Amino acid sequence: MSQRTGQLRLGAFLYPTGHHIAAWRHPHSLADAGSNFRHYVQLAQAAEAAKFDLVFLADGSGTRGDNVDFLSRTAHSYVAQFEPLTLLSALAAVTERIGLVGTASTTFNEPYHIARKFASLDHISGGRAGWNLVTSSSEHEAKNFNFDEHLAHARRYERAVEFADVVSGLWDSWDEDAFLRDKDAGRFFDPAKRHVLNHRGEFFKVRGPLNVARAPQGHPVVVQAGSSEAGKALAARTAEVIFTAQQTTADAVAFYADVKGRLAQFGREPDDLKIMPGVMPIVGRTESEARDKFAELQALIDPAVGLAMVSTLTGGFDLSGYPLDGPIPELPETNASKSRQALTLDLARRENLTIRELYLRVAGARGHWQVVGTPQQIADALEERFVNYGADGYNVMPALLPDSLNDFIELVLPELRRRGLFRSEYEGGTLRANLGLKRPQSRYRAEEAQTAEA
Amino acid sequence: MSQRTGQLRLGAFLYPTGHHIAAWRHPHSLADAGSNFRHYVQLAQAAEAAKFDLVFLADGSGTRGDNVDFLSRTAHSYVAQFEPLTLLSALAAVTERIGLVGTASTTFNEPYHIARKFASLDHISGGRAGWNLVTSSSEHEAKNFNFDEHLAHARRYERAVEFADVVSGLWDSWDEDAFLRDKDAGRFFDPAKRHVLNHRGEFFKVRGPLNVARAPQGHPVVVQAGSSEAGKALAARTAEVIFTAQQTTADAVAFYADVKGRLAQFGREPDDLKIMPGVMPIVGRTESEARDKFAELQALIDPAVGLAMVSTLTGGFDLSGYPLDGPIPELPETNASKSRQALTLDLARRENLTIRELYLRVAGARGHWQVVGTPQQIADALEERFVNYGADGYNVMPALLPDSLNDFIELVLPELRRRGLFRSEYEGGTLRANLGLKRPQSRYRAEEAQTAEA
Repeated sequence: MSQRTGQLRLGAFLYPTGHHIAAWRHPHSLADAGSNFRHYVQLAQAAEAAKFDLVFLADGSGTRGDNVDFLSRTAHSYVAQFEPLTLLSALAAVTERIGLVGTASTTFNEPYHIARKFASLDHISGGRAGWNLVTSSSEHEAKNFNFDEHLAHARRYERAVEFADVVSGLWDSWDEDAFLRDKDAGRFFDPAKRHVLNHRGEFFKVRGPLNVARAPQGHPVVVQAGSSEAGKALAARTAEVIFTAQQTTADAVAFYADVKGRLAQFGREPDDLKIMPGVMPIVGRTESEARDKFAELQALIDPAVGLAMVSTLTGGFDLSGYPLDGPIPELPETNASKSRQALTLDLARRENLTIRELYLRVAGARGHWQVVGTPQQIADALEERFVNYGADGYNVMPALLPDSLNDFIELVLPELRRRGLFRSEYEGGTLRANLGLKRPQSRYRAEEAQTAEA
Repeated sequence: MSQRTGQLRLGAFLYPTGHHIAAWRHPHSLADAGSNFRHYVQLAQAAEAAKFDLVFLADGSGTRGDNVDFLSRTAHSYVAQFEPLTLLSALAAVTERIGLVGTASTTFNEPYHIARKFASLDHISGGRAGWNLVTSSSEHEAKNFNFDEHLAHARRYERAVEFADVVSGLWDSWDEDAFLRDKDAGRFFDPAKRHVLNHRGEFFKVRGPLNVARAPQGHPVVVQAGSSEAGKALAARTAEVIFTAQQTTADAVAFYADVKGRLAQFGREPDDLKIMPGVMPIVGRTESEARDKFAELQALIDPAVGLAMVSTLTGGFDLSGYPLDGPIPELPETNASKSRQALTLDLARRENLTIRELYLRVAGARGHWQVVGTPQQIADALEERFVNYGADGYNVMPALLPDSLNDFIELVLPELRRRGLFRSEYEGGTLRANLGLKRPQSRYRAEEAQTAEA
């Protein structure tokens, strides 16, 4: 495989006070960020001025966890913040070009609502909507939606496959030219260009059609994050962007080859899916400035929070009975996020980390790749994965907001641009165009084309 | 009862091209209004500059009906338009003072999502959110949500009562001062001010807490529209605004007394619920100008559309086999909107209307009160219902957008202001304050108060 050329795709992952677990305690963070709309407007406008492809909002359909003492010591368990679709819709009105990607669960939603809301956001924003499809790993969320216990991992993914298929079908309800709006003849639409889905599957019965016109992007962009076997299979089938978490270039390259290799079986090309791992960069003008910034955040981690964070990342088992300076015990396989459990345990075993060392390693970036260094060092790290086919771009997870986003924009982006790795102006008018993704053909047009060929 | 003083509350009901069934065919309407965000921005900003209390978005969770020929001749069956919560959130970012009321169904949603989205909109807008609670009258919507047939009317209302109770409980998840955000002590919230709902009812199991801080309004304003017995009972229990449809002052006064009289049994005062009937005003500088405007719209009604509209308003039964110039046949009771069926049939019988006469009477305003006249005549009509305790205000349904909204603002509002019936400036900073509604106390604070008294 030849050395790669081209440009990175970049997302700005906006967790209220920043991605670092202790960011909310830093003097520069806005502690009320999760309910502060002006804060998000400033972040989104700054990311847009810097030509990021998209802003990305993670989500949970409920607080993660029920250990109240732990929860009360963090701002990072989806305790209290904006709901992503309402927030992205509001941001759509005060931005022009940047993509707007929000999380919605296939386990706790109805496909008709999700298809409709993202299509509506795509119209409001002029073609900038993206849906981050998650199956929801937390049992605590399930209890807000009539479940006594969480649906098993495999069933969640079976439901997700059918859910995504229904959403995609609903997005094809109307051909692009279905709406005649012929005032004189009194014809609002052409009945031949309206398609009734009539879906009847194992999980859903959905008649359709969707009551929103075809989205400006054809379909909003579908993003997915799972890295388990079921997650990769779902992504290969439906996703156009993967937001993933690999700690090393070797793992990233293996993941990249694995997922891209699965696309052909669904009639898709490697470029139809962009792989954008998460990365938490801590940048300083010098290496020691970067290390100091990171140390300042790490020192703010409450040990009780660090321990609980490790518990969550390794599958939700209570580790408080084990010595902090001893090894991670053997843990059973989880029904929560299998891929996150495996990634975290692999790291601990590879580097022989104690519980305390593990929490200092992963609690800060919460299981994501972190890079601490000068703009050159960070650009080197991002370039290395990219040129070796370990990533098509990154979901940049600023540790502390707004500081770390501004640092990345002011210090790292000029370096990436100098290397020809990032744009100076948006290429297209839609998120899909900027990401370099094809416009999806309607399933009904595809049928017509097949019929015509036959 | 003494002659009434005080001021009207006014909502602007924004159906894409206007409320009149044929508005989309008028040369002044934007035929793509349902997907045109700039159009809504202009309408909302105009309504805000005129000091309307709120904009109101009706909704259907799917196209109403499946007669494709009929549907293709109207823009009025929720065929293709923005989803209300995404649209209102976007409008929140480009307005400052006006209330934002959107429709969401208790039959096809989960209370956790609804509580969260409206609380989020309330934060984004700084206290301007309102939820129009509907049980969804259309069987066609049910088929988009796994139902083979629609839940019976009575069951829908039983579900709605429990749904509203869960939403209200979730909105009380956090005391107003729960979030300490104490960076030095590392305490994000006070555990004693977080409340877990643990709801287990007939329809829902919802643990909570909600993962959005207490709304700026305490609770978003709850609006309701049903006028059936079950609808009035639900409104008396939970609603703070009723959007209703009475054709005559006598009916409006009876409805007003009936509903206000039901409040005491729930420990509520008459002023805790504002009754705002819908009205479609057609205003001209002279009476003949007004009549001409109305005639122009009426002439655009396609007879096939008028007939189908009458079918819908009388319960969804097919009337195409009956002579247009004959009487309305006897119809069985519907499982759709009982109150709308009764209101429409009463009108037909009272005035002995043929099917054609009925459709010309009701298709235009779709069952709502219509007033055609000069600014003085329209102000007289609005004032009469108000001073006789038939309304606390109105949901103004402009026939044609933007023209009819502008006419109302330019011609009728000055007349209402001259009479002291409408504000020249917003009184408060929130929708609730402008409507003159109390700030709700948390159910947990109320419990504490009772405990303290005992």
